[in-house]
Amino acid sequence: MQNGWAHTDVRRVRTLAPRPAPIGAGVVGCGYWGPNLARNLSEVSEFELRGLCDREPEPLRSLARRHPDVQVYRDFDHMLADEDIKAVVITTPPDTHYALGMKALRAGKNVLVEKPLATRLNDAREMAALARRSGLVLMPGHTFIYSPAVNTVRNLIRSGVVGDVHFVTSSRMNLGKYQRDGVVCDLAPHDLSILMYWLEQPVVEVAASGSCVFRQGVPETAFLTLTFAGGISASVQLSWLAPRKLRQMIVVGRNRMVQYDDTASDEPVRVYDRGMDHGPTSSFGEHQLVYRTGDVVIPRVEPQEPLALELQDFANSIRTGEEPRSNVGLGLDIVAAVEMAQASMMDNGVPLEFAPWVEPAVA
Amino acid sequence: MQNGWAHTDVRRVRTLAPRPAPIGAGVVGCGYWGPNLARNLSEVSEFELRGLCDREPEPLRSLARRHPDVQVYRDFDHMLADEDIKAVVITTPPDTHYALGMKALRAGKNVLVEKPLATRLNDAREMAALARRSGLVLMPGHTFIYSPAVNTVRNLIRSGVVGDVHFVTSSRMNLGKYQRDGVVCDLAPHDLSILMYWLEQPVVEVAASGSCVFRQGVPETAFLTLTFAGGISASVQLSWLAPRKLRQMIVVGRNRMVQYDDTASDEPVRVYDRGMDHGPTSSFGEHQLVYRTGDVVIPRVEPQEPLALELQDFANSIRTGEEPRSNVGLGLDIVAAVEMAQASMMDNGVPLEFAPWVEPAVA
Amino acid sequence: MQNGWAHTDVRRVRTLAPRPAPIGAGVVGCGYWGPNLARNLSEVSEFELRGLCDREPEPLRSLARRHPDVQVYRDFDHMLADEDIKAVVITTPPDTHYALGMKALRAGKNVLVEKPLATRLNDAREMAALARRSGLVLMPGHTFIYSPAVNTVRNLIRSGVVGDVHFVTSSRMNLGKYQRDGVVCDLAPHDLSILMYWLEQPVVEVAASGSCVFRQGVPETAFLTLTFAGGISASVQLSWLAPRKLRQMIVVGRNRMVQYDDTASDEPVRVYDRGMDHGPTSSFGEHQLVYRTGDVVIPRVEPQEPLALELQDFANSIRTGEEPRSNVGLGLDIVAAVEMAQASMMDNGVPLEFAPWVEPAVA
Amino acid sequence: MQNGWAHTDVRRVRTLAPRPAPIGAGVVGCGYWGPNLARNLSEVSEFELRGLCDREPEPLRSLARRHPDVQVYRDFDHMLADEDIKAVVITTPPDTHYALGMKALRAGKNVLVEKPLATRLNDAREMAALARRSGLVLMPGHTFIYSPAVNTVRNLIRSGVVGDVHFVTSSRMNLGKYQRDGVVCDLAPHDLSILMYWLEQPVVEVAASGSCVFRQGVPETAFLTLTFAGGISASVQLSWLAPRKLRQMIVVGRNRMVQYDDTASDEPVRVYDRGMDHGPTSSFGEHQLVYRTGDVVIPRVEPQEPLALELQDFANSIRTGEEPRSNVGLGLDIVAAVEMAQASMMDNGVPLEFAPWVEPAVA
Repeated sequence: MQNGWAHTDVRRVRTLAPRPAPIGAGVVGCGYWGPNLARNLSEVSEFELRGLCDREPEPLRSLARRHPDVQVYRDFDHMLADEDIKAVVITTPPDTHYALGMKALRAGKNVLVEKPLATRLNDAREMAALARRSGLVLMPGHTFIYSPAVNTVRNLIRSGVVGDVHFVTSSRMNLGKYQRDGVVCDLAPHDLSILMYWLEQPVVEVAASGSCVFRQGVPETAFLTLTFAGGISASVQLSWLAPRKLRQMIVVGRNRMVQYDDTASDEPVRVYDRGMDHGPTSSFGEHQLVYRTGDVVIPRVEPQEPLALELQDFANSIRTGEEPRSNVGLGLDIVAAVEMAQASMMDNGVPLEFAPWVEPAVA
Repeated sequence: MQNGWAHTDVRRVRTLAPRPAPIGAGVVGCGYWGPNLARNLSEVSEFELRGLCDREPEPLRSLARRHPDVQVYRDFDHMLADEDIKAVVITTPPDTHYALGMKALRAGKNVLVEKPLATRLNDAREMAALARRSGLVLMPGHTFIYSPAVNTVRNLIRSGVVGDVHFVTSSRMNLGKYQRDGVVCDLAPHDLSILMYWLEQPVVEVAASGSCVFRQGVPETAFLTLTFAGGISASVQLSWLAPRKLRQMIVVGRNRMVQYDDTASDEPVRVYDRGMDHGPTSSFGEHQLVYRTGDVVIPRVEPQEPLALELQDFANSIRTGEEPRSNVGLGLDIVAAVEMAQASMMDNGVPLEFAPWVEPAVA
Repeated sequence: MQNGWAHTDVRRVRTLAPRPAPIGAGVVGCGYWGPNLARNLSEVSEFELRGLCDREPEPLRSLARRHPDVQVYRDFDHMLADEDIKAVVITTPPDTHYALGMKALRAGKNVLVEKPLATRLNDAREMAALARRSGLVLMPGHTFIYSPAVNTVRNLIRSGVVGDVHFVTSSRMNLGKYQRDGVVCDLAPHDLSILMYWLEQPVVEVAASGSCVFRQGVPETAFLTLTFAGGISASVQLSWLAPRKLRQMIVVGRNRMVQYDDTASDEPVRVYDRGMDHGPTSSFGEHQLVYRTGDVVIPRVEPQEPLALELQDFANSIRTGEEPRSNVGLGLDIVAAVEMAQASMMDNGVPLEFAPWVEPAVA
Repeated sequence: MQNGWAHTDVRRVRTLAPRPAPIGAGVVGCGYWGPNLARNLSEVSEFELRGLCDREPEPLRSLARRHPDVQVYRDFDHMLADEDIKAVVITTPPDTHYALGMKALRAGKNVLVEKPLATRLNDAREMAALARRSGLVLMPGHTFIYSPAVNTVRNLIRSGVVGDVHFVTSSRMNLGKYQRDGVVCDLAPHDLSILMYWLEQPVVEVAASGSCVFRQGVPETAFLTLTFAGGISASVQLSWLAPRKLRQMIVVGRNRMVQYDDTASDEPVRVYDRGMDHGPTSSFGEHQLVYRTGDVVIPRVEPQEPLALELQDFANSIRTGEEPRSNVGLGLDIVAAVEMAQASMMDNGVPLEFAPWVEPAVA
């Protein structure tokens, strides 16, 4: 693993007491997800929303109506020319992340890029290297790891309540907005970010098979089998074709099972205290497992908007140089796993091992 | 596919009006599942339970107490010697099915074997061939395909309500009784029988990865990716380690999605009438899919005990020679797929293609 | 309250080690509920089922088929003449309980009567007095108080987990079998037995309003407001007209809320650890309540058949003279409350107070 | 019923094509519910938010921060003096509605008052009379009747899908913000508005019993039994003491049952197509009811913000003089029923009949 993201315990975003002036920020990409970021940027005190940019006039106009005091741009370069904009948030389609991100970094801006960081690992690495050389923050927007429910599960794992993790499953399905990069690029980063954040291990092997109904080469459904560095395996079912929104993950550990259902707003996390355990060994080996039975607990999860926490973490990183929870190392691991999944899909589902990238001595 | 099971429309088991004398039946294997079969055999009018057999004295004694008029046997051969026993039901562990099944067939008995038919495809074929030569019924006990809910889903697919099937997922987990043959041999036959019964296609490719926590070589968890003859793919998650019992299958089709949850006793089937469809093509290709929205329907499913229906189908097959719904061809296809899954697991998850077995001209 | 049922802590039915000969038992009423009792009587070791009785030939014949060794009777007197029958179970319609119960007691039999004990309080009292004078057991069949889930809730209240009970609600609805005594006589005894068992207090006031759709004078729907001796109030909604079966009770206490849903088989009890509490008093009185937030816990409830436990308690009472958990005092309190509810319904919903019955000094 | 609200079919709020200038609006009461109204007033194009008023500086300051361009007032009279404010929205505690409403009407403003219109029927009538004489709109804010789910149920009733309504139940519980007017004044208007809107009948009789735990005279829990003009009865359970938020209403009709659960965001309405019906009459009268069985349907409900629809209806009423869906007649009926419930609670639960108010000929 190329960085220490798993070892920093950033459970809560710090709030600095005497607050300095807000950081000027601009958003590029005013469609689907852009309005949420613009709203949060204008609501949190850490930022001042100064610019909105989109090539298309309609989403730009529509979003500008809600932010009448903010400057609008059709040309990204023009927005970058505003010297009071220190932070740029990129919410355009994935295959534009690299080009826009490099531009913004070259213009000396701190950058928050919607997931994934880029569609190719080498591009993402180039962005990461430029950010590091320039002393700028480059942060992927893995918003789920700021979700209170996701952090509840992480704490259950970290504290030993779950016990050694045996395996994980995930079903993430919806009627998806069709995107030209396919369902793996669209949805897998969510599962990967959550799983890496929970297990604190990178993925070392991926087998993936996808199927295309509406357009050749753009899978709307994919099944992934992941193996993590410590040997834990995970099954991930992704689809844009499912009328019922499903966002369910199950972590089965030696002591307990945890179910996380992001659509069950009131009760997103359930902990099952039943399991199988080693009992006294019999000579026949048939009865050596004993069952424990117990209660189900639904821990209280405080509602908080993950996007606001993410932006506060971005601001903190810009100001202090501390790594954000959703850091570039996590982003690179995710891009690597997505790339591997795409390659396995092309190779008919054969499992591919991750070739860990060793950063050249002189970078 | 080696037989016509998919083409026979055996939606309901026939009830013959003037009922002949009941068929004498014996059960071998009085443990876990045996008592259910013994009870059903003594309740349906088609059979007369005449014998109970188990090598171990305790389960035999325990079951005999509930059936005081039935003869008990420690030795299977002795039970086979009862000429009034025309049908033998085998509910012993999977790796004994072949030996006991062959013995029973050689003794001229009609045989119902708990799933799977055998643990190796060649053994299962040998059993099938012997039954055919001997004019005896050999029937695998794929009980799920007699379940009213499973048949409700099958009818939704057959009638076109679901539309072309895009993909299927299944999660089948519980705190399983540990069995020496592993979780794939134990649980996968359920998914395979249901999926083949729904899709009316055999599996042509399997990729499987398993993980062992408690004993090397006996996976308690396995993830399968299946490809069916028509190109449909399915993801199947199996585990014995999950404290919460999960039996959920999702069929996503062009017109509707069907969710089948066997643990939701009152409302096992839900039909979602929302989907994505081809709209008018735009030049950019981005907006060519349109969304339909609609209602969710929970069809009424009549409660009926599948095991009783299965036994009635067995009796009908013995009497008329008609193929039972759960027929030997289906059983062979399932053994083949299980064998393939085991091989893929040994090969680290590499997908394996099914080499269809061509029955020799002179069998 | 006329007896000590609330003060005896009969949490589990004792099992006597060296088991004496089983008690001969007969069942009168072979329709709806009779078969369940006959089956349980033949399964528990404490009883030997010796007689089945029904005026109508069809239910008698049907039930006799499942119990081929048991004597059948069209005439109740004939069954009572069997001296080896020491215990009679009455499962006929409520308005026959009094006449049949008196007959059985006069014949020297111990009697278990399906709820309610009788339809009129005076009749029930006469039965109770005769049983006491004769040294026989008279036990009403309030099966719910043997349910493991009901006892889980009782323990949560007794142990102080719930805290002082603020109020209770109950919704008990289904598509009911139409009975000539009306929905209150049919369903309210369930709620009353559970509530009295939980709160250990009798009902002192009842307001009830009923509505009739299909036949005048026989309400299919009724709303009851009960006040218990300690001041706790309960709202009970009863109906035979609801297509969805509802059996949900909510107990709100100072410390926690408990929800009991008898139709949620896996998770019948949920405990909510959130509440409102007295905080420091402010001068404005507006902010004197503070909120606690917490987890939801679903305690493990062991599945056990309540009817078997009830019969074992009946046998124990016959043998030892100990009061059964479902004792005659509880039965009388319930008949009293039902009678009051019927009277309030006749009086257009005006609340009626319970006039406690003082047993004459010389009885 | 004093007006025709039940007969106007205002299923959807009209959208006028060429939009006139927005109506100037002010909000008094910046606490709990005020911010929602301020936000919606600033978002819908029909209004221009011009004033915010609160006696207390803190909520005023806090809300002003979100609406920096809007004038703030500590004194209501000063806000009324702004001639460009044509509409005033009152979201202060219920016992201030009358005084503030009268003031606003006297100042010539159109008034939207949060529910209930007033705490006493006579006060509410005086407000209604003044509004009528002055040609101004007086509208109670019964927001629930603009909810898409509530309207889905209304359409199911209107269209005959449900059939003749047999009865209704409602459970509305939460951990409530303590209010000095008690739980009936706080929560019952929701149930009353929904029930009157569904059944298109006023309440003619109310029996209510309440219980107080934390402060004498301020019930936190109340059970209501309502009788509607057509004979339908309803049971309503209200509480501020329940940790689990419950908002469930059940309508049982001759043809179908409808369940409306406002907390089940995705599937708020369920329709059960099972019921009991008159069958052929038998001479014994016991078997004259037959059961229909059928499916459950969860109709698609479009998400829309009810508050925005309510404000648009308010604007339409100001401009056109048309009655709003949530009209003053409905508001008066609700105040009358609440008053009756309070009186019945004081009278220990005795049912009280509604004495319909005949407006004097010369008003």
